[in-house]
Amino acid sequence: MRSLEVKNRTSASEIQCLRLITAIKTPYLPDGRFDLEAYDSLVHMQILNGVEGVIVGGTTGEGHLMSWDEHVMLIAHTVNCFGSSIKVIGNTGSNSTGEAVHATEQGFAVGMHAALHINPYYGKTSMQGLISHFETVLSMGPTIIYNVPSRTGQDIPPQVIHEISHDANMAGVKECVGNDRVKDHADKGIVIWSGNDNECHDARWGYGATGVISVTSNLVPGLFHKLMFDGKNPLLNEKLMPLIDWLFCEPNPIGLNTALAQLGVIRPVFRLPYVPLPLAKRVEFVKIVQSIGREFFVGDKDVQVLDDDDFLLVGRY
Amino acid sequence: MRSLEVKNRTSASEIQCLRLITAIKTPYLPDGRFDLEAYDSLVHMQILNGVEGVIVGGTTGEGHLMSWDEHVMLIAHTVNCFGSSIKVIGNTGSNSTGEAVHATEQGFAVGMHAALHINPYYGKTSMQGLISHFETVLSMGPTIIYNVPSRTGQDIPPQVIHEISHDANMAGVKECVGNDRVKDHADKGIVIWSGNDNECHDARWGYGATGVISVTSNLVPGLFHKLMFDGKNPLLNEKLMPLIDWLFCEPNPIGLNTALAQLGVIRPVFRLPYVPLPLAKRVEFVKIVQSIGREFFVGDKDVQVLDDDDFLLVGRY
Amino acid sequence: MRSLEVKNRTSASEIQCLRLITAIKTPYLPDGRFDLEAYDSLVHMQILNGVEGVIVGGTTGEGHLMSWDEHVMLIAHTVNCFGSSIKVIGNTGSNSTGEAVHATEQGFAVGMHAALHINPYYGKTSMQGLISHFETVLSMGPTIIYNVPSRTGQDIPPQVIHEISHDANMAGVKECVGNDRVKDHADKGIVIWSGNDNECHDARWGYGATGVISVTSNLVPGLFHKLMFDGKNPLLNEKLMPLIDWLFCEPNPIGLNTALAQLGVIRPVFRLPYVPLPLAKRVEFVKIVQSIGREFFVGDKDVQVLDDDDFLLVGRY
Amino acid sequence: MRSLEVKNRTSASEIQCLRLITAIKTPYLPDGRFDLEAYDSLVHMQILNGVEGVIVGGTTGEGHLMSWDEHVMLIAHTVNCFGSSIKVIGNTGSNSTGEAVHATEQGFAVGMHAALHINPYYGKTSMQGLISHFETVLSMGPTIIYNVPSRTGQDIPPQVIHEISHDANMAGVKECVGNDRVKDHADKGIVIWSGNDNECHDARWGYGATGVISVTSNLVPGLFHKLMFDGKNPLLNEKLMPLIDWLFCEPNPIGLNTALAQLGVIRPVFRLPYVPLPLAKRVEFVKIVQSIGREFFVGDKDVQVLDDDDFLLVGRY
Repeated sequence: MRSLEVKNRTSASEIQCLRLITAIKTPYLPDGRFDLEAYDSLVHMQILNGVEGVIVGGTTGEGHLMSWDEHVMLIAHTVNCFGSSIKVIGNTGSNSTGEAVHATEQGFAVGMHAALHINPYYGKTSMQGLISHFETVLSMGPTIIYNVPSRTGQDIPPQVIHEISHDANMAGVKECVGNDRVKDHADKGIVIWSGNDNECHDARWGYGATGVISVTSNLVPGLFHKLMFDGKNPLLNEKLMPLIDWLFCEPNPIGLNTALAQLGVIRPVFRLPYVPLPLAKRVEFVKIVQSIGREFFVGDKDVQVLDDDDFLLVGRY
Repeated sequence: MRSLEVKNRTSASEIQCLRLITAIKTPYLPDGRFDLEAYDSLVHMQILNGVEGVIVGGTTGEGHLMSWDEHVMLIAHTVNCFGSSIKVIGNTGSNSTGEAVHATEQGFAVGMHAALHINPYYGKTSMQGLISHFETVLSMGPTIIYNVPSRTGQDIPPQVIHEISHDANMAGVKECVGNDRVKDHADKGIVIWSGNDNECHDARWGYGATGVISVTSNLVPGLFHKLMFDGKNPLLNEKLMPLIDWLFCEPNPIGLNTALAQLGVIRPVFRLPYVPLPLAKRVEFVKIVQSIGREFFVGDKDVQVLDDDDFLLVGRY
Repeated sequence: MRSLEVKNRTSASEIQCLRLITAIKTPYLPDGRFDLEAYDSLVHMQILNGVEGVIVGGTTGEGHLMSWDEHVMLIAHTVNCFGSSIKVIGNTGSNSTGEAVHATEQGFAVGMHAALHINPYYGKTSMQGLISHFETVLSMGPTIIYNVPSRTGQDIPPQVIHEISHDANMAGVKECVGNDRVKDHADKGIVIWSGNDNECHDARWGYGATGVISVTSNLVPGLFHKLMFDGKNPLLNEKLMPLIDWLFCEPNPIGLNTALAQLGVIRPVFRLPYVPLPLAKRVEFVKIVQSIGREFFVGDKDVQVLDDDDFLLVGRY
Repeated sequence: MRSLEVKNRTSASEIQCLRLITAIKTPYLPDGRFDLEAYDSLVHMQILNGVEGVIVGGTTGEGHLMSWDEHVMLIAHTVNCFGSSIKVIGNTGSNSTGEAVHATEQGFAVGMHAALHINPYYGKTSMQGLISHFETVLSMGPTIIYNVPSRTGQDIPPQVIHEISHDANMAGVKECVGNDRVKDHADKGIVIWSGNDNECHDARWGYGATGVISVTSNLVPGLFHKLMFDGKNPLLNEKLMPLIDWLFCEPNPIGLNTALAQLGVIRPVFRLPYVPLPLAKRVEFVKIVQSIGREFFVGDKDVQVLDDDDFLLVGRY
C-alpha cells in the first residue's frame, strides 16, 4: 500500500534533527468528539513558538482513548493543516501488531512524516517478539521507538534497540528510563529524545540527547524552545521544575488537561478515565502560572481556578 | 468538529465551475488492499489530461466495498498528494444518516473540497426524510447531490432539490435521470453535472449542464476534456459511443475494471461481487481501443486480452 | 471459522417449514442506542401469537442503519433470549461481499439459525457476479435469498435462483416481485415466502408460497397467524387491507415505526433518515386500529395520536 | 440497553462460589481468524474436567489482539455453545472507559454471566479516575476486578477496592500482587481469586482465596481441579511447579501457545507480537509432560517437539 506521491515523504534524518517535539493535547467538545478548532489553535501556538514536531494521539493526546478512525483522521487533519510548518509524527503504535500495522500503513498513506512505536504494553512479549513486532512496522517509514516501562510493564532493553537500529527507517528512541540510559544509547550513536520533562535539560546538555518529546511544552512552548536551543540554562530549568512537578503529580495528562482548561484554551471536557485534579491542586496551578509569568503560557485569557461543576466527564465516546 | 485551519477550505462556487470530474477507479493489491501506487498513477494521468476533480470512493471507485476508515484514508491521501492540482470530492454519502454524518465530518476534517451525497438507497425514505437527511449533512461543506434512481430505487424529485438548494453549501446535482431533467434543473439555475457518459455531450452543449462526472474519462481523459471544453463536437461524441456502450454493458464498474486491467494500468484484481467481463467482451475492448487509437487511452503498455486465469477475485477484504 | 458445537445448528429443511416470519422492528433509546427491553417485549409478543421466526436487522429492523457490531450483537442477543422458542434469521446480507462474508460467519458463530441474503443493491453486478456473491455465503449455513428490485435496483432473475438452488443450504426465496413470480418459483419446487403483505394471503393459498416474511405481523401477529395457518380467508384479508395500505404509504418502516410508537410499545425515537408519518396519517392509524379492534394489536395501552413534539429524531448514532 | 429476558442473568453470588476458572486460550486458523472448532474442543475439555468458568479474551486469550467485534462474537459464541455448562466471563475491560462501556454492554446483552475489568493500563489514571472508571461499568452486571500491576504499570490499591466493593455487582478480585494482599482482602470479606498459578494452592488453602483464575488449567484442568477442591496437597503443587515455571519463562501466553501446539490440540499459529518459545524450551516441555504424565494433559495425540518451520506467525489480522 505504498505511495510514491505522498508530498511530504520524509527520511529518518529529517526527523533526527528535531530538538523540540510536543506530545500535543487532544481537546474535546462537550459530547466527547474532538474539538478541532481548539486543536488547531493549540498546534498553531506550538508553531509560533518554534516547536518543530508534534506527536499526534500520543499518551498525552490520549490516543488510547481514540478509535483508530478518529486517530488516523486527526493525523491526516494535522498533516493537511500544518504539515508544511511542523513535522507530524503519528502515534500509530499498539500492543496489537495487527493494529499497529494497519494504523501505520494508513498514517503514512495520509502523509504523516514519522511514526511513534511503543513496545506491546500490557500484553508484553519475549525479546524475539519485540524484535518481530518492531521489524514488521519499521519497513513503512521513519520511526521513533518509545520506551516507557512505567506504563508498559516492560523495558525495551538496549540489545533490542541495537538489533533494530540497523534499519534505515529507525530514527531514534524516546527514552523515559533516565539519563544514564540516554547516555548509554547516545554513546552508541543512537538518536535520543528525553521523555521526561524534569530530566530533559540535563539529557540535552549533559547526556547526549538530541532533544525532548515534551508534555510541558504544551503550556510553555517558548520556554522549552529556549531550554533545548539556547545552551545550558540551569536557572530556567530550575524555574520550570515546580510546574513540571505539578504536571506529573498524577498520571499524565490529568495535570495537562486541568492546566489547559484553566488557561482557557480548551473546554473543560475530559474523556474518562481521566478526571480533573482536585481544587487544591487547581489553586496551586494558578500560583505557579503567576510565579513563572502568564505571558510565557499559551493563550491570552486570564488563568482561573475552575469549579468542580465546570468540568464535564464523558464516559461514552 | 469544525476547523478553520483546513488549508483548502473551498466554497460551493469553486466546485460549481468544474466541467470535468472523474469518478476515479480504486485499484487493488492481490490481497484486496488498495494499490496506492497504481491509484496515484491513475490520478496523475487525470491531472495531466486536464481533469479538474475526482470523486473518491464513488460507485465507480467502489466506495460501497470499502470500510469507512479505508474510505476516509483514501480521501485524505488524495488531498495530501494531489489536493493542490485537482479538486477532491469525497463520496461520503450513505443510506445511513449516522454514517453519512460521521464520514462527511471526517472527510472535511482531512481536507476534502466537497462531498457527494446520495439519497438513502435501498432503505429509502419519505420526501420529508430526504430533506432531513440532506439538511443534516449540508451544513458541513460544499455538497453535490447524486440522483441515480436505477441504483437507489428512488428518484430525488425536483421539489426536494428545490427545497435544499437554498443552502449556501449546495453546489449542484449529479443527475442520471436524463437530459430533460437536466434542462429542467438548469433552467432554474441549479448547477448540473451529467451522470450519463452517453448523454453528457448533449447535456453540456444543449441542455444547460455545467459538465460531467464521468466514468469513461478514467480511460480517455483527454478526449473527455475536448468533449466538455472545446465546443460542440458530435463527431467525437459519436466516435466515443461504442466505447461507452461497451463500458456499460454490465453494471459499472465491471467494464471499467476490465478495461483498465487490459490497458496494463492496474492489477487484474476484483473485489467481489464484481467479476470481469467475459472473454468475448474483452476481445471486443481491444478492437475498440485500436479503432479509437491507443494513444488516447491512459497508460503506455500495449492493450491486451487477458485470460480468465489472469484475474484474481477477492471475497474477504 | 466453523463450529460443530453451536447448540441450535439448523438444517435448511427446518427453515423451509416456517409459515410466519416477522421482520422484527428494532426500537431505540432516546440517545439512539437499541432499547433492548422494548425489543424483548416485541419478540415476546410475537412468540405468544404463534410467529415462528424473526428476521433480525432486516430492512424493517433497519439493519442498514446499524454498525455490524450492533447488528451481530442483536442477533446473538435474540438467539440467547429466544432461540429455543423462535427461529432467528439474521439479515447478514450486504452489497459488499466482504461485509456479507464477515457478518454471516459471525452470525452463525453466535447461533443464528439462518441468514437472509440480498443481492448487491445500489452497486449491482452481472449475473455471474450475483452467482459468485451468493455462492460465497451459501457455504456457511441455511440461507434465504431476498429479492426486492424496488429497493435494490436489480431483479434476481429465475436463472440465478435456479443456479444456486442446488446448494443444500439454500432454503428458499423471499420474493417481492409479485405472485406470478411466486408461482413460477413454487412450481419448480423452490420454497417461497411472500415479501408483500398485501399479496401474501393469495400467495399462500393460491400461488404456492410456503408463507410470508411480514412487516404487518409486528402489529397484528395473531391475525397474520390466522391468515397463514387457518385456510383461505378472503374476509380477514380484506379487513387487513386498509392497515396494510396505510403501513406502506411511505417506504417501510416509516409507517411501522409510527404505529408502534402510537400503540405505546416503543419509544417514539427514529434514527434518520426515517421520520414519522404526518399528523393526518397518525390520526388515520388510530381509526384503523379501532376499526380492526385494539385487542388484535400488540401492547395493552390505549392507542393514541402522538404530537410532532413527541417524536425524537436522531442523526448521530 | 438492559434486557430482562437474558436467559442466564446471573447474580454476583453465583460467580463468587466458583473455585476454578480458566483463562481460556483462543486458537487461530492459518489466516489469523479464530479456529472455532479447536476453541470448542478446548472449552469442552475444560468442562469435562470440572472447570466452572472461563475468561473469554483475557490476556491469556489475547483479547488485546482482537477487534471488539471479534471479542464480543467469541463471548456470544461461548454463551451459545456452553453457557449452560460453564460460567462465561467476558474480559470486556479496557484502558478506554468508552470501549469498556460499549463492550460490557454488548457482552451482557449477548448473555455473558460476568465481566472482568482491568484498571486503565498504559494510560493509567488517578485514584478518583480509577473509581469513576469502575463505577461506570459496575452498574451493568456481575464484575470481577483484575489487578496485575506487572502488566498495567499501576496497582489497584486496597482503598479503591474497598470503595467499589459496596456495589452489589462487585463479585471479587483476581489478584496477582501476592498472597499477603490476598489475605488482606480476604480478611475484609472480599472474594479473591489468585491470578498466579504458582501461588494459588497456598492462596486457596492458606490465605483465604476462593480459588484461582488459571492459565495452567488450560493444560491440566483435572489436576487443577484437584488442587482447588480436594484439600491441601503440597505434593501435587510441587509436582506442578516445573510446568508452571516453564509456562511463565516468557510473558504469558507464549508458553501456553507453544505447549498447546505441541500437544496437538491447536494449530501452531501465532498472532504477533507473540512468537513460539525456542527449540530448547520446546524440548523441555515434552520432558515435563512425560514426567507429569501425558494422560493428565488435554488432548490425546502424542506430545511432540515442533520445528521452527511448523509455526506460522501472522502480522495482519
